[in-house]
Amino acid sequence: MNNELKNDDIAINMAGVKNKFMVFSGKGGVGKTTVAVNLAYRIMAKGYKVGVLDVDIHGPNIIKLMGLEKERLVSKDNKIEPIKAFDNMKVVSTASILETEDSPVIWRGPLKMKLIRQFLSDVNWGNIDYMIIDSPPGTGDEPLSIAQLVPGLNGGIVVTTPQSLAVLDARKSIRFARQLKIPFIGVVENMSGFICPHCGARIDIFKTGGGQKIAEEMGVEFLGRISYETELMSLSDEGKVYLKIHKNGTPVSEAFTYISNKIIELG
Amino acid sequence: MNNELKNDDIAINMAGVKNKFMVFSGKGGVGKTTVAVNLAYRIMAKGYKVGVLDVDIHGPNIIKLMGLEKERLVSKDNKIEPIKAFDNMKVVSTASILETEDSPVIWRGPLKMKLIRQFLSDVNWGNIDYMIIDSPPGTGDEPLSIAQLVPGLNGGIVVTTPQSLAVLDARKSIRFARQLKIPFIGVVENMSGFICPHCGARIDIFKTGGGQKIAEEMGVEFLGRISYETELMSLSDEGKVYLKIHKNGTPVSEAFTYISNKIIELG
Repeated sequence: MNNELKNDDIAINMAGVKNKFMVFSGKGGVGKTTVAVNLAYRIMAKGYKVGVLDVDIHGPNIIKLMGLEKERLVSKDNKIEPIKAFDNMKVVSTASILETEDSPVIWRGPLKMKLIRQFLSDVNWGNIDYMIIDSPPGTGDEPLSIAQLVPGLNGGIVVTTPQSLAVLDARKSIRFARQLKIPFIGVVENMSGFICPHCGARIDIFKTGGGQKIAEEMGVEFLGRISYETELMSLSDEGKVYLKIHKNGTPVSEAFTYISNKIIELG
Repeated sequence: MNNELKNDDIAINMAGVKNKFMVFSGKGGVGKTTVAVNLAYRIMAKGYKVGVLDVDIHGPNIIKLMGLEKERLVSKDNKIEPIKAFDNMKVVSTASILETEDSPVIWRGPLKMKLIRQFLSDVNWGNIDYMIIDSPPGTGDEPLSIAQLVPGLNGGIVVTTPQSLAVLDARKSIRFARQLKIPFIGVVENMSGFICPHCGARIDIFKTGGGQKIAEEMGVEFLGRISYETELMSLSDEGKVYLKIHKNGTPVSEAFTYISNKIIELG
């Protein structure tokens, strides 16, 4: 990456964005976007202004998980106006510029890079306390662009499930973040320890502990464990934010309280 | 894509590869690689010579699912020698050229494209009846390169889970395949209808029927439904091919028999 792409326009446009965290993963399907949305919601519920930037260009699901499929990004005074998901949450996603919900974005790397730049330099973000950036799985163009383009990126939050394949890919993500000198790296273990909702028996689909183990082995922060709760998935599927419905008192909501406190402490 | 990249060297090198299918998905974590590996194994078990090409450069998991992590690609007579997974199965993956298992590949699109070209033009594939190409999720550089570079690609197999988010992303994959004029498009519904192994009750984590519905709606072939079986996941996690252990008689093995017969018919 040459410096000419790190233009001042991004720094100027994002001057009001205090803290920026990237949520990413090695493997797809680990619930990364669900974690990003609920984390953003929890931080907002604590009284902060939050921005959510979805740079998963081929599978931009933030919008669907929040039930915002009908909203479109509009321009105003030469800037792109973000979607107001809640009073204190602004959201931007490729999904909101697509013609239809199921239009595929058949773009190669360089074009994706340009779109991400535009999201950083041309969106009217205004004043934001915490920006959560949802990146697609893997270590390709999108997370690389974020790591290189976002000024003062505070940290990367790696989401993994405990199964060994996901953990292997999480190791790659941690090494990726290290190589790119992202200051803080934390691991969230999602879909941990599944309990049958009918008989209460533990079903070892995804196992448990893999995320914590890898965080310890690699010397990064373990941010917490989110247990497998079918409602977390089913509400996401319906476009509802789990934490909006279950504010407190469930193992999942407690986990998010813990994780969001850690993130706020870092800010 | 300009034509200069569609060089004759790929066509010459792949002259002995009769049929080529790409397995892809809109969303990650739908079991795409598990489906690709077991499908390849089943076709081989029916007496065909099979090649497996893993173009998931950031998360090359084919190798891990087959327990081939220790194998490395070597060169011989100016060609890359594929890994012999079984007597009649050759495998090539980025994972086999990485220094360590958890090295991240931090590459942008153009570099990935070059590596994929090399896998097509410089690997000693020899004579192969069916090549299964495992692509990463989404509609980015890798599946695009395959669609544009592989001569005579027979078809694309879209893997989805029944949950609505995955189905939405599968729609994108189908539209992607259509826009790229891939001749045949089929849908496999994976992780369908989960049953608790302890009490036998149905747990609607991933629902059922979403894959079939989308295939019908979009007028593409429905290739079959693979039920959620924890052993399919746990064996994959251990690097064992499910169908090598459960040749027949389980719902999963029957589903693969049906799907592989369809693919063989198309050859």
